[in-house]
Amino acid sequence: MSDFQHLLSQRTQTMQRNQIREILKVVSQPGMVSLAGGIPAPESFPIEEMYQINEAVLDRYGAAALQYDRTEGFAPFLETLAGYLTDKGIAATADELLVFNGSQSALDTLGKVLLSPGDCIALESPSYLGALSAFGVYQPRYISIASDDEGILPEALDAALERHAIKFIYLVTTFQNPTGRTMSRQRRQQIADIVKRRRALVVEDDPYSDLRYRGEALPPLHSFAPGNTVYISTLSKIFAPGLRLGFCLAPALIRDWLCTAKQSADLHSNTYAQALAAEYIGSGVIARQVPKIIALYAPRQAAMLAAMDAHIPAGYRWTKPEGGMFIWIEGPPGVDGEALYWRAVEQKVAFVPGKYFYMNPADGLPTMRLNFTRVDEAAIERAIATLGRVMRENPRDESSRKRIN
Amino acid sequence: MSDFQHLLSQRTQTMQRNQIREILKVVSQPGMVSLAGGIPAPESFPIEEMYQINEAVLDRYGAAALQYDRTEGFAPFLETLAGYLTDKGIAATADELLVFNGSQSALDTLGKVLLSPGDCIALESPSYLGALSAFGVYQPRYISIASDDEGILPEALDAALERHAIKFIYLVTTFQNPTGRTMSRQRRQQIADIVKRRRALVVEDDPYSDLRYRGEALPPLHSFAPGNTVYISTLSKIFAPGLRLGFCLAPALIRDWLCTAKQSADLHSNTYAQALAAEYIGSGVIARQVPKIIALYAPRQAAMLAAMDAHIPAGYRWTKPEGGMFIWIEGPPGVDGEALYWRAVEQKVAFVPGKYFYMNPADGLPTMRLNFTRVDEAAIERAIATLGRVMRENPRDESSRKRIN
Repeated sequence: MSDFQHLLSQRTQTMQRNQIREILKVVSQPGMVSLAGGIPAPESFPIEEMYQINEAVLDRYGAAALQYDRTEGFAPFLETLAGYLTDKGIAATADELLVFNGSQSALDTLGKVLLSPGDCIALESPSYLGALSAFGVYQPRYISIASDDEGILPEALDAALERHAIKFIYLVTTFQNPTGRTMSRQRRQQIADIVKRRRALVVEDDPYSDLRYRGEALPPLHSFAPGNTVYISTLSKIFAPGLRLGFCLAPALIRDWLCTAKQSADLHSNTYAQALAAEYIGSGVIARQVPKIIALYAPRQAAMLAAMDAHIPAGYRWTKPEGGMFIWIEGPPGVDGEALYWRAVEQKVAFVPGKYFYMNPADGLPTMRLNFTRVDEAAIERAIATLGRVMRENPRDESSRKRIN
Repeated sequence: MSDFQHLLSQRTQTMQRNQIREILKVVSQPGMVSLAGGIPAPESFPIEEMYQINEAVLDRYGAAALQYDRTEGFAPFLETLAGYLTDKGIAATADELLVFNGSQSALDTLGKVLLSPGDCIALESPSYLGALSAFGVYQPRYISIASDDEGILPEALDAALERHAIKFIYLVTTFQNPTGRTMSRQRRQQIADIVKRRRALVVEDDPYSDLRYRGEALPPLHSFAPGNTVYISTLSKIFAPGLRLGFCLAPALIRDWLCTAKQSADLHSNTYAQALAAEYIGSGVIARQVPKIIALYAPRQAAMLAAMDAHIPAGYRWTKPEGGMFIWIEGPPGVDGEALYWRAVEQKVAFVPGKYFYMNPADGLPTMRLNFTRVDEAAIERAIATLGRVMRENPRDESSRKRIN
């Protein structure tokens, strides 16, 4: 047995093992109520319909659903997906789409195509951890853009684009992970104007916008600046994440290189899964399923917000998103979200300490991300009551206060 | 609309668009008999059985088959796959396996984890083009190792390992793509001894060994040097390539980093496809299907070899592999395989000019790769008769002779 440490690439030597994964190992303990993770409820999947969808795929496509296919995507899937997106107000043709193994693979491939070591990415802080992990492999430098409840600040973005050579701006525009925040319509227009004026590139990651429980749908940032936006989305939240079906719309040059890089990386995405999705969308099952998913999640979110009003002590603030999968809590100064995590875990309640979503974890010590899609209303109410008790018993964490001061 | 050329990474600026793809565009013309590609026959897929396999997956796993899953792979698939490999003489436990989106993604991830720009890879020339394309993204330097009909030459490998800091040796050990050649048992032992002595790492790519039509199965190189070998294989040739199911066995340190890199790149592979494969293997369908595939391909190969004896002019030599998907032809000096390709295409017969598989294309001008799995015996006989006629009408290609001299 040899030690191959010396064979690792420079990029591997800077690769981070997933720290959250370590602290979340306890989540699988028996009896744990998990508000961690960002996983759809298993009862949101169209299991019964899948029997029929499978048969239809085998009847309709036969061997073609099992064969090698084009890198761009399975043509019947691209056609139905383009129609679905266009109906939602996202102008797309089959030719413009590119399918990936989940949106994670679109993020990875973007990093591969655009990032040399030391290149700058502008983003919100906190940001989606999976994106940081995908891009991080290519050794970029992150430029944090200040934000408020409506999204990143236009003047802060403009200043950053002036000061740095920024490869792209990464944004989750609707029901952001981890905060649940949505960029306002006016802010979308302002950001679009800036990127057009500065010929900059935005990567808009939009996995959650179909999960809207209240309020009016907003057009994606992409629709304000299509020539400057890589729009990425997924069927993971409205069909099944296990099928690993992400996709993107991108300016032609970027799309061509993404396709070339994808061909070298995995030839093409799963043909069979794309055929299932073509049937899921084309047969109209999706049009019945998305309202069912919303009807499942909306009361869970309402239960969480009501329980928070009842149980979370004064001094804590939290977001009230109109959709998505997460609520974000910010405690008063001195609170240590990770210390609270370990106390809550003793009481069989888990969530994600928010600091892990920050470029600089010290900026997010008093924050927490709570997911409401995975467990039912009664369990949510009990879990939040427990969390409130833990918070009251630990108004300020001494160990964390020491670390902060 | 902006021009984003300046946003591309250094690696993208060196990325090659697939040249073969360009010249093979004509293959889809109506009436073309294609001996190009390396694609399974659609009639080799277990379409009828898929109805039952799908039902069994939904009955047995339900929502778990549609949910997010571990990066390493879907546990029931890993278990059945480990059993299947062990039965074939490839000692493996579920814990040692790692699932990828096709073996192409295993190659890409290996490149990502091991290669910094300028690092050396040792390989045979000609080699599998997809591997060159996967590794090429990470800007390596290729060191060609001389070979004969039994595989790479031990003394040439030993000298290369002495002279260069080689990250890994890439080999398709059985029924190689493109040559069809198989490394002999004695050569496997010799190569294993060298890599163990020199603490080197071999990447053994083994997609074809199940497709054996004659002769005795050989143990993989992995079994001679398990601590020094990353063994990669796939279900693409014995189940369905559209499911994108590749996998690897690797020394622990390499495997851990592959898993970390894969998590950043795509979270995990398609759960549903893995569940289908678990059922395909576990229910015993695979044990009936592989002999059917062999019964389909063996006569096609026999038909091609017989037609070559009858029609290919003197001066040409070709391999007679005991299995796989390819036969490799080498013409006499002065023959230009690509010029022959264009003449053959006029007669509605396509193959792949062999020079594209070489590090230095000039080394492979008179070579050609012929695939026999995709079309039936009668079409193969006619195609080879045509090819023989084209060869006789163009004994030496004047344009290529000029280029060589």
